[in-house]
Amino acid sequence: MRAETHNPPFFLGIDLGGTNIKSGVVDDAGQPLSAVSVETLAAQGPEAGVRRLAEAGRRAVDASGLNWHDIAAVGLGSPGTMDLAAGSLLDPYNLPGWDRFPIRARLAELVDKPTVLQNDANAAAFGEFWAGAGRGTQSLVLFTLGTGVGCGIVHEGTLIEGRHSHGAECGHMTVQMENGRQCSCGSFGHLEAYASATALVQRAMEAMAHEESALLRQSLRDKALTSRSIAEAAERGDRLAQRLMRETARYLAVGAVNLMHTIDPDIVLFGGGMIAAGDPFLDAIRADIRRLAFPLLRDRTRVAFAELGGDAGFIGAAGCARMALGVSGCKDRQESTFDTPRELR
Amino acid sequence: MRAETHNPPFFLGIDLGGTNIKSGVVDDAGQPLSAVSVETLAAQGPEAGVRRLAEAGRRAVDASGLNWHDIAAVGLGSPGTMDLAAGSLLDPYNLPGWDRFPIRARLAELVDKPTVLQNDANAAAFGEFWAGAGRGTQSLVLFTLGTGVGCGIVHEGTLIEGRHSHGAECGHMTVQMENGRQCSCGSFGHLEAYASATALVQRAMEAMAHEESALLRQSLRDKALTSRSIAEAAERGDRLAQRLMRETARYLAVGAVNLMHTIDPDIVLFGGGMIAAGDPFLDAIRADIRRLAFPLLRDRTRVAFAELGGDAGFIGAAGCARMALGVSGCKDRQESTFDTPRELR
Repeated sequence: MRAETHNPPFFLGIDLGGTNIKSGVVDDAGQPLSAVSVETLAAQGPEAGVRRLAEAGRRAVDASGLNWHDIAAVGLGSPGTMDLAAGSLLDPYNLPGWDRFPIRARLAELVDKPTVLQNDANAAAFGEFWAGAGRGTQSLVLFTLGTGVGCGIVHEGTLIEGRHSHGAECGHMTVQMENGRQCSCGSFGHLEAYASATALVQRAMEAMAHEESALLRQSLRDKALTSRSIAEAAERGDRLAQRLMRETARYLAVGAVNLMHTIDPDIVLFGGGMIAAGDPFLDAIRADIRRLAFPLLRDRTRVAFAELGGDAGFIGAAGCARMALGVSGCKDRQESTFDTPRELR
Repeated sequence: MRAETHNPPFFLGIDLGGTNIKSGVVDDAGQPLSAVSVETLAAQGPEAGVRRLAEAGRRAVDASGLNWHDIAAVGLGSPGTMDLAAGSLLDPYNLPGWDRFPIRARLAELVDKPTVLQNDANAAAFGEFWAGAGRGTQSLVLFTLGTGVGCGIVHEGTLIEGRHSHGAECGHMTVQMENGRQCSCGSFGHLEAYASATALVQRAMEAMAHEESALLRQSLRDKALTSRSIAEAAERGDRLAQRLMRETARYLAVGAVNLMHTIDPDIVLFGGGMIAAGDPFLDAIRADIRRLAFPLLRDRTRVAFAELGGDAGFIGAAGCARMALGVSGCKDRQESTFDTPRELR
């Protein structure tokens, strides 16, 4: 991570989460020079929060060995739904009081750099497209498997943001319209209600009511029943855990094929904590996709795990900032908020 | 439809169906100067078929009052899956023997004009975008409700064709992953298996096994049980028919909201024979969309019927030809097959 082995321009990415803020500086090829994490302190409200964002960015620049004036632009990834044109979040679940706070404009003031806002799952998808498992493709779909099911779609080099900043909210696509499980959003039958890490744990709890599993019961007693402990139990031969993982793979395959039959990307990626389940899980997803997809796509659409891990968000947010500076393909309306350094236009 | 009231350049659109070929000439604003229909004679094979396409085009030009040399380019819309880059169809259901026949190249030879191939549902979506109910939008989704559920997506002014020509095959998105109805494609739980005109009739037949409906039974006896007769029975107060139409509206709302949560377009359109059911049907779809969509989208995404009727396919195909001539935003790889008239570049 020595700055002198990287080429300018440099971009700062900031990934806002309910608990932590991750930030890092990346070079013009998407390679990170630094990666830092600070607590969000979400309860202190948006004004304190935006100062935490700037603080995280400052630390990331310090850790990169660069100076602040080396940074061409700043990208912020944030959870929840938002109004990208306004640069504000809409009633974010993990960030009480941040509703419609002008987060992009305030951050731009504090850092005194061109600043873009992007949905965190979109940012992660753009990160994988730019510098991760989607390098060299023209279009991809990324599912991020965690508390929820995040989704980002890159179509011909640009993110599908949607006309109301609600593009790629595919965790909230209905895959079971009759008697569907309830989703975190309140609706029923959404992919997220079946395939998130949270849903996996919930399904395990329900299944344990009428099916024995020594390993899962022990995890539950240890207050350690997580998607990871279920995946590990499956690996150790636990029948119930294996069935739960197989079902999860099938749900994800349904979601993936729905996007293959809509966007028809080069590659479908899975990221987030649940991919710690490893190759058996990926192989199960692939097998179900082959079973469900149109014949041509079975053979041609690649399916893989994401590569950037927890850095995807800030790398992709930095990439969105780079795009907005006109490197290629980003959104005009965000450029209009820029005071772009002349030499970078 | 007098040519002298329209402005050049002019484009010829041809819409290939299993039974009929529709064709027409449109002006540079997407207004048709002619519309003709000839039988496909699909059983005579692709070489005879492509001559029928050219014949339909010739008649459309004659009917327009223009001469063949007034036509700048030709667009062909075709059903089924295809390889757009190769310009050929892939095992089309209604066109036996046309698999991988180089339909675009052969038609271009016969008509001696730059020629593009497009999926018929995509072409219809582009037609509505250019000259129909989607005028003035930047992105739209069109569901065409007939034997199947066709879909086309215009995203920021261009069609989502997909990386393997399988974009917007959203009739084949899974909306019921457990115990789903079987789709025409063989898979289970697809939107098309619930919401097409064919599926509506099938569901009516099944329901009549255990629920009385004098009107529907009469239609069945008259061999006239169609989506239209079911819609008419609903309008005349038939309980079962009303329930079937309400269910159909809900299925379509699920499909629409899935696309709103993926593409987030300005407008969702419904076209095809089933929209003859009229405003009560549209209102029912809208009510279910409002119930199922994210709050912001409930208020902002427009939902409407398509406007171009059976002309959407040839108008949109002509529009794709126009785009490919470089007017804006069409696909480079199709332009490469063009011998573009210099004055139109």
